[in-house]
Amino acid sequence: MTYPALTPGGSLVVAWQLRGRRVLLVGGGDVAAGRLFHLKNADAHVTVLCPPEGLCAEMKHRMDVDHAVDTYIPEVYSSESQLESGSYDMVLTAIDDADLSRAICQWCRARRIPVNVADVPPECDFYFGSVLRRGALQVMVSTGGKGPRLARQIRQRLEAALPENVGDAIERVGALRSALRRVAPEARDSGKRMQWMTDVCEAWSMDELARLDDAAIDRLLAGWPTNQVPTYREVYGASVRWALPSARDWLSFALGASSVAIAALWFTRRTNI
Amino acid sequence: MTYPALTPGGSLVVAWQLRGRRVLLVGGGDVAAGRLFHLKNADAHVTVLCPPEGLCAEMKHRMDVDHAVDTYIPEVYSSESQLESGSYDMVLTAIDDADLSRAICQWCRARRIPVNVADVPPECDFYFGSVLRRGALQVMVSTGGKGPRLARQIRQRLEAALPENVGDAIERVGALRSALRRVAPEARDSGKRMQWMTDVCEAWSMDELARLDDAAIDRLLAGWPTNQVPTYREVYGASVRWALPSARDWLSFALGASSVAIAALWFTRRTNI
Repeated sequence: MTYPALTPGGSLVVAWQLRGRRVLLVGGGDVAAGRLFHLKNADAHVTVLCPPEGLCAEMKHRMDVDHAVDTYIPEVYSSESQLESGSYDMVLTAIDDADLSRAICQWCRARRIPVNVADVPPECDFYFGSVLRRGALQVMVSTGGKGPRLARQIRQRLEAALPENVGDAIERVGALRSALRRVAPEARDSGKRMQWMTDVCEAWSMDELARLDDAAIDRLLAGWPTNQVPTYREVYGASVRWALPSARDWLSFALGASSVAIAALWFTRRTNI
Repeated sequence: MTYPALTPGGSLVVAWQLRGRRVLLVGGGDVAAGRLFHLKNADAHVTVLCPPEGLCAEMKHRMDVDHAVDTYIPEVYSSESQLESGSYDMVLTAIDDADLSRAICQWCRARRIPVNVADVPPECDFYFGSVLRRGALQVMVSTGGKGPRLARQIRQRLEAALPENVGDAIERVGALRSALRRVAPEARDSGKRMQWMTDVCEAWSMDELARLDDAAIDRLLAGWPTNQVPTYREVYGASVRWALPSARDWLSFALGASSVAIAALWFTRRTNI
């Protein structure tokens, strides 16, 4: 038996849970606005500490239009009492003052509060990457700080490669899994349930999973008692669909067509029709 | 000015830094072995707490062949004193005993030690996803727990879409950035440096960046003082390369060719050559 080789030098990439957790964001510029975006997409309770004149346009938009800042403290960071009052579960700073940032970092580390100081890797318990989102799907691209611009380009390439309906597919597979748990709630069936879900995800394409409506879930679950997975055609009685030709397909077609047309012309000329 | 819409309901996907940090892994089965793989790829100091008879084949391999377990405690978890002795920065459990896991989780939470109890989302400060790795690149696919099997399939699709040389490209861009910092170390040039790096990453393709050797880095940096980015051709004097036609290109070509051939045949028959 062989196992994948270890490749040291990376990070532990994880999906941190922030629902209902309290996060302090020190700063109000462009970087802080980017942090706020990620924090609110993770349902955190966010406190922003920044004087009004330090708020960039995006941050103002997030506050005034999106109501994304749960608590706003219109002050400059100046003392630890500002940190102590909030019982924060995480602290992020994105300010220009390196000394203040370091002081905040040390305060957090002494209390085991996860901290990220923008642009200062040694003062970060975790790094951000470039993130794409489609419904419940999140894909994060990290270069371990070596190439943030490249990370964004790679993320864009991956985005283009994602199946169109991947967010819907995840949503519907989640619904199927919930329905299966209602049909077979016993803990002893856990392994069998996981295997059946795997079988479904392998037998059905992403597109097919995305179109799995509630009636189809019932028909699919009819296979569960005998541990079988009905195919998409069995569930829907649908015929196989063909992908439309792409621009490149048409170009190749045209090249092929014209080359033979030229050959035919040449042949007819030579034989003097 | 418009900004991307917030999409609540996700996680904060981050690259957690574990170099030199102490992590306790309770358990020795398949799930624990998977956790160990990710922890060692992030350079953590890992302690495994598990009786010898609980170690699966992969865990034994990681211990005996890879020497990936820094500290091995051949015991069943039974008391908090086993947790207290290690000054751990993170604790993961992957054992079958739900009560013991909950007790470990509560102990960690009282001390703000990040904790993950396998398969029990409410007892997790963070979730794992499906990860791909190419050199310094890490891509993590998370479905927020809705479809772990789908996450793996999506990761495999993304893996296929990644440019072949993406790991090398990141490595070489990292080298270019270090060289640039040596040439222009001043803090006040920080913004200009970032912009120039962005320009390089936009002007050069992934393949070209991956082939950026040290001599080429010097020639590329010659553009820095005048804030210009020499092209790949200027640096290497190489000609543009063409992608070879794919199987699909040939199929389309053949379809086009044969359709005109049939038309030509039909035409020549009709005109009685």
